Amino acid sequence: MKLQGQEEYEASSAHENVSAGELESDHGPSHSPGSSSETDSRELGVCTDPPLFIQLNELLGWPEALEWRETGRWMLFEEKLEVDAGRWSAPHVPTLALPSLQHLRSLLVKGLVLLDCPARNLLELVEQVIRVESLSPELRGQLQALLLQRPQHHIQTRTWPCWGSTPPKKVPHNENVPLKEQHQNPLRQKLPPEAEVATVLAGELGFLPQPLGAFVRLRDPVVLGTLTEVPLPSRFFCLLLGPAMPGRGYHEMGRAAAVLLSDPQFQWSVRRASNLHDLLAALDAFLEEVTVLPPGRWDPTARILPPKCLSSQHKRSLSRKREVEGFSTRRMAGAEDRRGPGPQVPCPELQRTGRLFGGLVQDVNRKASWYTTDFLDALHPQCFSAVLYIYLATVTNAITFGGLLGDATDGAQGVLESFLGTAVAGAAFCLLAGQPLTILSSTGPVLVFERLLFSFSRDHNLDYLPFRLWVGIWVATFCLVLVATEASVLVRYFTRFTEEGFCALISFIFIYDALGKMVNLTHAYPIQRPGFPGYGCFCQYPDPQGNESQWATTKQKNRDDILSMVRKVLSDFSSVLAILLGCGLDAFLGLATPKLTVPTEFKPTLPGRGWLVSPFGANPWWLSVAAALPALLLTILIFMDQQITAVILNRAEYKLQKGAGFHLDLFCVAVLILLTSALGLPWYVSATVISLAHMDSLRRESRVCAPGEAPSFLGIREQRLTGLVVFILTGFSIFLAPVLKFIPMPVLYGIFLYMGVAALSSIQFVKRVQLLLMPAKHQPDLMLLRHVPLNRVHLFTAIQLVCLGLLWIIKSTPAAIIFPLMLLGLVGVRKALEWFFSPQELLWLDELMPEEERSISEKGLEPEQSFGGDESQDSELMYQPKVPEINISVN
Amino acid sequence: MKLQGQEEYEASSAHENVSAGELESDHGPSHSPGSSSETDSRELGVCTDPPLFIQLNELLGWPEALEWRETGRWMLFEEKLEVDAGRWSAPHVPTLALPSLQHLRSLLVKGLVLLDCPARNLLELVEQVIRVESLSPELRGQLQALLLQRPQHHIQTRTWPCWGSTPPKKVPHNENVPLKEQHQNPLRQKLPPEAEVATVLAGELGFLPQPLGAFVRLRDPVVLGTLTEVPLPSRFFCLLLGPAMPGRGYHEMGRAAAVLLSDPQFQWSVRRASNLHDLLAALDAFLEEVTVLPPGRWDPTARILPPKCLSSQHKRSLSRKREVEGFSTRRMAGAEDRRGPGPQVPCPELQRTGRLFGGLVQDVNRKASWYTTDFLDALHPQCFSAVLYIYLATVTNAITFGGLLGDATDGAQGVLESFLGTAVAGAAFCLLAGQPLTILSSTGPVLVFERLLFSFSRDHNLDYLPFRLWVGIWVATFCLVLVATEASVLVRYFTRFTEEGFCALISFIFIYDALGKMVNLTHAYPIQRPGFPGYGCFCQYPDPQGNESQWATTKQKNRDDILSMVRKVLSDFSSVLAILLGCGLDAFLGLATPKLTVPTEFKPTLPGRGWLVSPFGANPWWLSVAAALPALLLTILIFMDQQITAVILNRAEYKLQKGAGFHLDLFCVAVLILLTSALGLPWYVSATVISLAHMDSLRRESRVCAPGEAPSFLGIREQRLTGLVVFILTGFSIFLAPVLKFIPMPVLYGIFLYMGVAALSSIQFVKRVQLLLMPAKHQPDLMLLRHVPLNRVHLFTAIQLVCLGLLWIIKSTPAAIIFPLMLLGLVGVRKALEWFFSPQELLWLDELMPEEERSISEKGLEPEQSFGGDESQDSELMYQPKVPEINISVN
Repeated sequence: MKLQGQEEYEASSAHENVSAGELESDHGPSHSPGSSSETDSRELGVCTDPPLFIQLNELLGWPEALEWRETGRWMLFEEKLEVDAGRWSAPHVPTLALPSLQHLRSLLVKGLVLLDCPARNLLELVEQVIRVESLSPELRGQLQALLLQRPQHHIQTRTWPCWGSTPPKKVPHNENVPLKEQHQNPLRQKLPPEAEVATVLAGELGFLPQPLGAFVRLRDPVVLGTLTEVPLPSRFFCLLLGPAMPGRGYHEMGRAAAVLLSDPQFQWSVRRASNLHDLLAALDAFLEEVTVLPPGRWDPTARILPPKCLSSQHKRSLSRKREVEGFSTRRMAGAEDRRGPGPQVPCPELQRTGRLFGGLVQDVNRKASWYTTDFLDALHPQCFSAVLYIYLATVTNAITFGGLLGDATDGAQGVLESFLGTAVAGAAFCLLAGQPLTILSSTGPVLVFERLLFSFSRDHNLDYLPFRLWVGIWVATFCLVLVATEASVLVRYFTRFTEEGFCALISFIFIYDALGKMVNLTHAYPIQRPGFPGYGCFCQYPDPQGNESQWATTKQKNRDDILSMVRKVLSDFSSVLAILLGCGLDAFLGLATPKLTVPTEFKPTLPGRGWLVSPFGANPWWLSVAAALPALLLTILIFMDQQITAVILNRAEYKLQKGAGFHLDLFCVAVLILLTSALGLPWYVSATVISLAHMDSLRRESRVCAPGEAPSFLGIREQRLTGLVVFILTGFSIFLAPVLKFIPMPVLYGIFLYMGVAALSSIQFVKRVQLLLMPAKHQPDLMLLRHVPLNRVHLFTAIQLVCLGLLWIIKSTPAAIIFPLMLLGLVGVRKALEWFFSPQELLWLDELMPEEERSISEKGLEPEQSFGGDESQDSELMYQPKVPEINISVN
Repeated sequence: MKLQGQEEYEASSAHENVSAGELESDHGPSHSPGSSSETDSRELGVCTDPPLFIQLNELLGWPEALEWRETGRWMLFEEKLEVDAGRWSAPHVPTLALPSLQHLRSLLVKGLVLLDCPARNLLELVEQVIRVESLSPELRGQLQALLLQRPQHHIQTRTWPCWGSTPPKKVPHNENVPLKEQHQNPLRQKLPPEAEVATVLAGELGFLPQPLGAFVRLRDPVVLGTLTEVPLPSRFFCLLLGPAMPGRGYHEMGRAAAVLLSDPQFQWSVRRASNLHDLLAALDAFLEEVTVLPPGRWDPTARILPPKCLSSQHKRSLSRKREVEGFSTRRMAGAEDRRGPGPQVPCPELQRTGRLFGGLVQDVNRKASWYTTDFLDALHPQCFSAVLYIYLATVTNAITFGGLLGDATDGAQGVLESFLGTAVAGAAFCLLAGQPLTILSSTGPVLVFERLLFSFSRDHNLDYLPFRLWVGIWVATFCLVLVATEASVLVRYFTRFTEEGFCALISFIFIYDALGKMVNLTHAYPIQRPGFPGYGCFCQYPDPQGNESQWATTKQKNRDDILSMVRKVLSDFSSVLAILLGCGLDAFLGLATPKLTVPTEFKPTLPGRGWLVSPFGANPWWLSVAAALPALLLTILIFMDQQITAVILNRAEYKLQKGAGFHLDLFCVAVLILLTSALGLPWYVSATVISLAHMDSLRRESRVCAPGEAPSFLGIREQRLTGLVVFILTGFSIFLAPVLKFIPMPVLYGIFLYMGVAALSSIQFVKRVQLLLMPAKHQPDLMLLRHVPLNRVHLFTAIQLVCLGLLWIIKSTPAAIIFPLMLLGLVGVRKALEWFFSPQELLWLDELMPEEERSISEKGLEPEQSFGGDESQDSELMYQPKVPEINISVN
């Protein structure tokens, strides 16, 4: 557990954001910067070097009007001063010309290198730098005055006018106190307090007889007055001056020095260098690793945007190590790395104990130890906004599913039941479950099943709610058996094939149902034909997809900017806004649309029933036994729905600290099904989308980040309080019922349509279906296409399509009731695919099942598979830390 | 003029696609590859070196199963064999590690360099390579057998199965005849027939005691049997073998050699090298120019997509020259380069002769000399498809404008007049005008004016058509005066400020009118309220913008792929499809929408008038004199509309060969206005969008292009025939009238709405308006933002907004009739802006007016303006050839 406020410090050490889980930990005792994994660097904390801010002060205006001006700055990326436009450029990847690095090297060889210089202020430093040079006393004086001249910084504050308005003052002494402007610099807030500064001074100085190069490392970092843009202590000082040089020689050399200093490996070496030789060795090591773009094939002036994630130092040292060790290591490492992409289920929870309820006991024990912190960790303002956000999403969900469930069951359940059930079940789950971040919801597949159950009981003149109670009792029993036998360890067999097949199917059902409902509406409320006085038109519900996808991906971090905050609020609440807009338009035009049926009193929607469902009602006694059959199927459905969601939520990339609780979660779901069946409320399992949104709103991210760097993900605020409060609020929302009756049903169908489409668009299966139709030339550069022949990819996709088609057919025939069984069949099909596809192909197209993983790690990849390939390349891409993003799936 | 079929040859010399107009032509007699501008290289033709195809054959499988396999190939960009996936990667910018280049260099220093080797086949070549080495006879034999072994090429044909199915045959001799597969290689069609091949052979060969490097340039290029993927003669041969090396040393070295050979400057040098020293000098020159990306800030395995246009060799040598010559040259060059972005009006047409009708006579003389070729140049299949495409666009236009004009003038004009007028005026213009690519249309602004004129004459009980005839007579007279006084040279004052202001205003009018019309429709045909049995809904016309923007930008060149051709057809005809879809939906739902009013007979739409308008009708005689006032305003409008379009069409980036004809065009417009006024047909001026689409459909592009390279633009098929045929077809379409009456008016309004929105989205002004609302952090990296302070940009935008607001107010008041005068005022406002903005700022925000241009080129940029800036960088971006794209503006 991390204390609050500690994040600023973590951020600096997490600059290289590699998840610990994806790294090998075989690093030796050598203390090179790459050898510590993130966990180590966190624990070492202050042991790591402070981050370095580098600025380039350029000498401009030779010969008439000499002045220093800061024209570039670096932390991770380069920012260039746009002189004409008077602003800093966007951060970009620095590009250098090779000759500038070579010139720099030769200048350093001839120049002055002072390591551990004891200077205590700028004057002392300047005296050190000019004294040792073979300069005439006159030149020294000139140079000293010049070096002490106050440089111009372009500081982008709102209160302080831009540079250029105040002429540069030439105050040679007493420059050791930083100015107010330096303290007000907003950049300072971006730098961690322990950061140090390196200043590169470069420019043309005609009166020097020959180029003058100096590199100084200060023994103790000191604040050098107005020299630096930010009033932080300086560690490095690099001087590159000389007579006229072709091109922008000194500028480019200065940039080269700054880029070198911004390289973590070079920084590490130069902090420990004891002489010129070490310095040059570090420069040469840098050159060994640069990427070279040929001229004429790349416009050197184009600015490359910062990559989404940086390649880690660890990887750099690892790849060098591999290079030395040669092929065999590389191959094995490739195989290891490849295990990255799958949903890495934390192992301890999924080891069978072999005892009855062994898994449950383990879950309870593990979770109990976190229970106090589960409430203390919620004491953060972020949790407040998370509650608001998730509350609205939950209410939307309750309205939508409640409305549709009421529609599907002729009012056996309704919006009131939905609200009540959501509040009771959700709150109980948040209090007791293994994964308290989960948000329960009456989800799509269960809704489909309930509809089947209802039409079955209607067709056979059964009393629905008592029948449903018995189904619930049996489901709870079966689930308990599953918990007792630790069946949850089987989730390891749910690979992406199953997951995406399930998701795609449910999406299709959503889309089909939403469209079908709307088409039905046009029959019930027909469009006007000529002959009527009216002017009819086709009806199109504005699809909120554009907004909603932003909801999932955009994360505006610039909290200073009010406008962009406004934007975030709008995008966060876009689904609520879409509902409001739809309702408003409906009310404004006064359309005769069917509305949500909402009871005005707090009593069950079905007239004449009490809150407790009677166990038999009008049904024969044996029905309570026969209910076991549908209950078996529903159990499979609930097991798959609950556990697939749980697997996704507990993925390693979310960096959860408190572990999962697969057995405990299933146990809670079983108990809640019993409860809700008895009260005639909807059934609840975990909802993927809304739970992921919950987690997303509780992300802990580094606040201190360099320009151009994406904030690094530190973890999730794992606690029980936000969920609990959300569901308590939902409970109170029952009294909102009078407002809810203004919601038109087509608006809810529109949301369903959107959910179906959004869920489809997020899965790899759909991308592969698109590949089927795409000429090879236009296909994107997907990693799987680099490694699996196209016809094998197509074959895999085709098999998935056939499976889905079969499932759809089953769903549409009277055999629909055995549909959950068929879902389970997907796992079998996936297993059978091992006969047709090599493990390497399945690794890229899907992920490995437990047995395959074991066999691969035992045997390694066969030589001909890795023959001539470039695992080193692929593995590097694999190393990219998975930044959690909402993988929209149907809840 | 170029002969047909010559393009294949031009393509190869136009690899570096810099427009001749943007280049200085001060190159000296030195014969370096960069020193020839495109025009030169075209004229030199065969003098330039043949293009080079480079392949890397890698030795794999040491020690058990040695085999050669082609794993990479280069023309401009790199294609890598995805061994696992069994396909060539997409072309990408090659990236190298610096050490591999250094290893290559040292291997070449120690190795064998044979320049002008006389070998006549592979055997002789191999013997040459192995003889001179200090190898034991036994090793030589082994090496020879190995080098003669047939390599495996992955040839992507549909008829021939992939590699791997046939085991490699080891036939050491008689390998000089290429295989059938090599001939069938589709890559061969991409290579020009004179292309040569370079083969790099690299790999680990454990039995060699030390690395073996050889570089051979063949005196006469010979086909080396199965060695190469394509059966083309080989010129270079590079061998890099040796004992085990850490990492993938030989692979990377081989790639480095291949990338070097793919560099045009290195190619040029190495073709002329006479010894090892020259070779190494060429390598060092390459290293001088590479771009270096620091490690850790860039993932070296990421593949960089080919840039849209390559930086030219000319630019490379120029930038080096500048570097040597130092600052002053650079600054001046910067100023020169900057003149690039504006619409570079060809100068000769816009020089005042000082004689009455002098410009017209000049235009006629110049155009007469091209008249025969104006018909002969149309003999190309491309012209056929252009006719089809433009015909549909013209008919759509005629329907839309005809329908709206009929609507606006209560049937004084109608669809029939629109078709007839379009056919007559368009055909006449194509036959006689200065710029026969122009497509005439009754455009938006004139439509607005005509509506004003109509409501004026209705309000004052005037006989409209006779009044209109007199307006037309006066307009023609005024236009003739403008032609006589060569007023068209004033178009140089139409800068982007005026152009975009005009365009934005017209777009707003379109959008406002379209929305207004639709809102009016809801009054006339109200939506059903509750209480009626009907179910009403809001009406939303599906905006075809998504499709239409593709129409303007996508250009699928892959003619082999039937699917993508289908795509192109769909996108080309998307506006027609949108109309058909709208009509179909209307018919399917049987909606009571108002339809286009179409006469069933060939007679004027207004009942009771003949084709010839009587000169007075019921109007008093003095009205014929008073008509001069509105005519003056209309003349300004027509002059501006016609000439702004002409300036856009004659931009230098379209590389028109036959010149413009501003005076002649205006003369033709004047005559046609007289004619159409007399016949009571709509008035016509040039339409920007449709004319640009016409030019776009007549683009001549290089067909032979390397993978990853965008086809280079060679010019436009300038001729009169396509336009003529289009308008003759339009004339015949009058008999389509019975079909046209099914088109609902809302569909036409929708098209207008789309045109307004599309026109808005293409102009820089709108981008700047967006900047007003965007936080600095999220602003795109626009060149103008690199050079102009943000508040100056905002000021400029605000002034434009105020101008537009004023124009809008004038348009909406009774003073609307002086609107054209106010439009002209835009030019005055732009002139006045010179007091508030520096020429440098105007250069970026707008473009320069003639006086400013003169003053800049006389004075050069002031030092403090270019001070510290980086013109060299900007100018490089300026150099990017402007590839013509449809700049959608309102016609």
